[in-house]
Amino acid sequence: MSTKTVAGNYFEDFAVGQEIVHATPRTVTEGDIAMYTALYGSRFAATSASTVAASMGLERMPVDSLLAFHLVFGKTVPDISLNAVANLGYAGGRFGVPLYPGDTVSTRSTVIGLKQNSNGRTGVVHVRSVGTNQHGETVLDYVRWVMVHKRDVDAPAPETVVPELPGAVAPEDLHVPFEIATGAYDTVLAGSPHLWDDYEVGERIDHVDAMTVEESEHMLATRLYQNTAKVHFNQHAQSATTIGRRLVYGGHVISHARALSFNGLANAQMVAAINAGTHANPTFAGDTIYAWSEVLDVLELPGRTDVGALRLRTVATKDLPCADFPYRDEDGRYLPQVVLDLDYTVLVPRR
Amino acid sequence: MSTKTVAGNYFEDFAVGQEIVHATPRTVTEGDIAMYTALYGSRFAATSASTVAASMGLERMPVDSLLAFHLVFGKTVPDISLNAVANLGYAGGRFGVPLYPGDTVSTRSTVIGLKQNSNGRTGVVHVRSVGTNQHGETVLDYVRWVMVHKRDVDAPAPETVVPELPGAVAPEDLHVPFEIATGAYDTVLAGSPHLWDDYEVGERIDHVDAMTVEESEHMLATRLYQNTAKVHFNQHAQSATTIGRRLVYGGHVISHARALSFNGLANAQMVAAINAGTHANPTFAGDTIYAWSEVLDVLELPGRTDVGALRLRTVATKDLPCADFPYRDEDGRYLPQVVLDLDYTVLVPRR
Amino acid sequence: MSTKTVAGNYFEDFAVGQEIVHATPRTVTEGDIAMYTALYGSRFAATSASTVAASMGLERMPVDSLLAFHLVFGKTVPDISLNAVANLGYAGGRFGVPLYPGDTVSTRSTVIGLKQNSNGRTGVVHVRSVGTNQHGETVLDYVRWVMVHKRDVDAPAPETVVPELPGAVAPEDLHVPFEIATGAYDTVLAGSPHLWDDYEVGERIDHVDAMTVEESEHMLATRLYQNTAKVHFNQHAQSATTIGRRLVYGGHVISHARALSFNGLANAQMVAAINAGTHANPTFAGDTIYAWSEVLDVLELPGRTDVGALRLRTVATKDLPCADFPYRDEDGRYLPQVVLDLDYTVLVPRR
Repeated sequence: MSTKTVAGNYFEDFAVGQEIVHATPRTVTEGDIAMYTALYGSRFAATSASTVAASMGLERMPVDSLLAFHLVFGKTVPDISLNAVANLGYAGGRFGVPLYPGDTVSTRSTVIGLKQNSNGRTGVVHVRSVGTNQHGETVLDYVRWVMVHKRDVDAPAPETVVPELPGAVAPEDLHVPFEIATGAYDTVLAGSPHLWDDYEVGERIDHVDAMTVEESEHMLATRLYQNTAKVHFNQHAQSATTIGRRLVYGGHVISHARALSFNGLANAQMVAAINAGTHANPTFAGDTIYAWSEVLDVLELPGRTDVGALRLRTVATKDLPCADFPYRDEDGRYLPQVVLDLDYTVLVPRR
Repeated sequence: MSTKTVAGNYFEDFAVGQEIVHATPRTVTEGDIAMYTALYGSRFAATSASTVAASMGLERMPVDSLLAFHLVFGKTVPDISLNAVANLGYAGGRFGVPLYPGDTVSTRSTVIGLKQNSNGRTGVVHVRSVGTNQHGETVLDYVRWVMVHKRDVDAPAPETVVPELPGAVAPEDLHVPFEIATGAYDTVLAGSPHLWDDYEVGERIDHVDAMTVEESEHMLATRLYQNTAKVHFNQHAQSATTIGRRLVYGGHVISHARALSFNGLANAQMVAAINAGTHANPTFAGDTIYAWSEVLDVLELPGRTDVGALRLRTVATKDLPCADFPYRDEDGRYLPQVVLDLDYTVLVPRR
Repeated sequence: MSTKTVAGNYFEDFAVGQEIVHATPRTVTEGDIAMYTALYGSRFAATSASTVAASMGLERMPVDSLLAFHLVFGKTVPDISLNAVANLGYAGGRFGVPLYPGDTVSTRSTVIGLKQNSNGRTGVVHVRSVGTNQHGETVLDYVRWVMVHKRDVDAPAPETVVPELPGAVAPEDLHVPFEIATGAYDTVLAGSPHLWDDYEVGERIDHVDAMTVEESEHMLATRLYQNTAKVHFNQHAQSATTIGRRLVYGGHVISHARALSFNGLANAQMVAAINAGTHANPTFAGDTIYAWSEVLDVLELPGRTDVGALRLRTVATKDLPCADFPYRDEDGRYLPQVVLDLDYTVLVPRR
């Protein structure tokens, strides 16, 4: 029998300091942009219209920040999380240069943390992954950690290394890939008069709109990102599990939440950082995603008067409207309808 | 709580003469063409092959006329019909320059009619919407009217203004964006020997083929057009309504009907006008769309011997084959299986 | 009533030697590549990254070989198999120049065999179809045979002509559209260290991964290819048949099997030949596709030290993992879960 099939790495296959070059670089095109629009209906003008991108000083229309995220993430799955029990969290995600049609993105990861769980069957792996374009410029740099099965329960536990997680990306570390000339930005075309100056810390926004998830859609998305995690695709195998269903890729929910957030945050043209993120509960086909956001911080950017940043918490729910901003119960646990808790930073033009 | 969320306009928010610049210009690409082909399987050769487009004197292959329609229409939804009860009709739709990959389309609307309904809860709003490309050239100019909820039932009724609706677009007002050199057009590659000269007024064509609609497909389409009407997307909310289902965007049915019409009208390379249109009954996922057409008029175009126009009525049904041309009952009401009655004008090469 | 609708050819409409120019040339774009990636999640690096394509001496990134196959095949359906009972087999398929974004592919067929079945109601039609690009270069040349209904059972049987089917395409007839400079090819980026040199005749590979098929996905794919066979699209009509379901286009399964085969055959960058193929059992939405492959031959290519060929049998199953390489029963019949038996030849870089 062939041993050429890749079974994915198990917990004992990882070592702190290990560097992994992930396979399958990916050239992104206008086709990906169309597919992304069809999947989420995103309306942020900088990634919808080349004329608006030009008004922001961009030579060409970039692809959505989160499409870049999904492509960078997707590369890591066959090596990092093919045998994952759960994708536990994100931290320190910093977007660099945008991806433009024609660019090719590759990803490398470094293992920065390992901790076997007390059950002896699984462990937590921390990786820092860096996506770069064909010029070697950083597109995205982020940390994630996943719970991974051991192949052999009797394999010895590695020395525990728990990395210090980066906090929210500092304003001076945010990359702003555009520069808006005075008066060039058109809020009517962008879809909202509310600019950076208009948001306040603690402000909450119910994004009102909602989107029902379909099996074929989350699979189209997840394959577009060349993410190979089996739980998203194999109903035959999932039918034999307790859950009985295909799980929706958490990033699919992130993109829906971001697209829904247009209603209230239309000028948040790009994502500059993913500070932290948790997929609080699983999402399945048939669930309807709602979302709300809270402004965690209103950040000036060093040397910039054309644009500022907002640090946001966006919470997505399933089958639960967000007028009351559902989040956690009395004991601090996520409500069962909460599927996403995302702490991220967006770039918003100033008045 | 934030007041930054857009709730859409209600009946009392409109005033005759009001001009609305719609948000989110949209750059159309080859990716949209591929998505459109995947959604409808359209085979009209001028929008399938750049070689055929070139044989018709077009420098590049344009996007399908109806994709242009959907994009222009989609822009208007957040301002005009987010709170619509029903999209009542179209009139006077005239296509201008085609959209080509790379073009950016924007839409503006003018309110041209207002009439509160006798129930005092809703009213009819007429708008004329104009889509333009990045050079300011008209891509599409059309009138539609929708029934919209009032926010406040006690708001005073506006003065009734019912605009005179344009009739069918006159031959001299049709824009023909191509010019065919003698002998350049190949009917074999186009898929049918039947040219403009071969059609007769009153002729009926059963398009034979049919297409079953899926939830994910109508949503992919409707998001591609950045049409935000909630009834297409939110199953959770729809489950609480009498209908209990997501409604399929009427334009999705128009595109299916047009794609089906290839079988019998393969040389109808472009749509030049939408004279009138009604979504006679709702379409839901699981319905199978059939279509038939009647030739309403055979129109010579001023100064043109290479191309003529056909004014058509295309009727689409759900779960009902069209060999008997199903349409209206004895009392003139649409049969319950009729979902679309579209009066439009196509451009067809001449012998 | 109109006679302009095309009903498709019936058995008695074909004559040996008949040449058919198929309608609707098709310009392939980066949009088609994105759609194809979304449908199958293909990860072969030569068709995923322009940087990898360049490392193989290709000026631009070509489209997947099988996307070319589907487009060429799709053109033939309205003329050859609209009234087919079954698509019986493929032989002698030889890929020529790849399709690149912007290319326009057209198809012509020649009838090379006719044999009425003993029941007098159907017959078998053999056609050789040739897809060419806009420069007249051959993209794909293959033979297929289909069982077609007679329109009139009483029509006389034609003289039986059963063509000699080509065997596997010989190594000297394989077209290799790339040339790899020494050291230019990166197996890490390609996703596997296993090159041509590492495969042995008789070696079997379980591709492990699996993919569940959805109604909307096989329809999106089949429309993308402008394949018009009714059985894939019309649930209303299919509900009245014994099967009761829409049938999945066999080529959709071929593409899934090829995408799954990445796990074990990641360096099989292009398909050079389809030697033979059978859709052993029908596939329906909801089925989960698994696949395994056997190396039938390891072929040196004349004058080439950079690349060799592998002749493979890839078998796809539904709802049956392939660790035991399921194939035929004791009597030589395909197991009921086997949906595809494909004998084809791939190009693989050498050490």
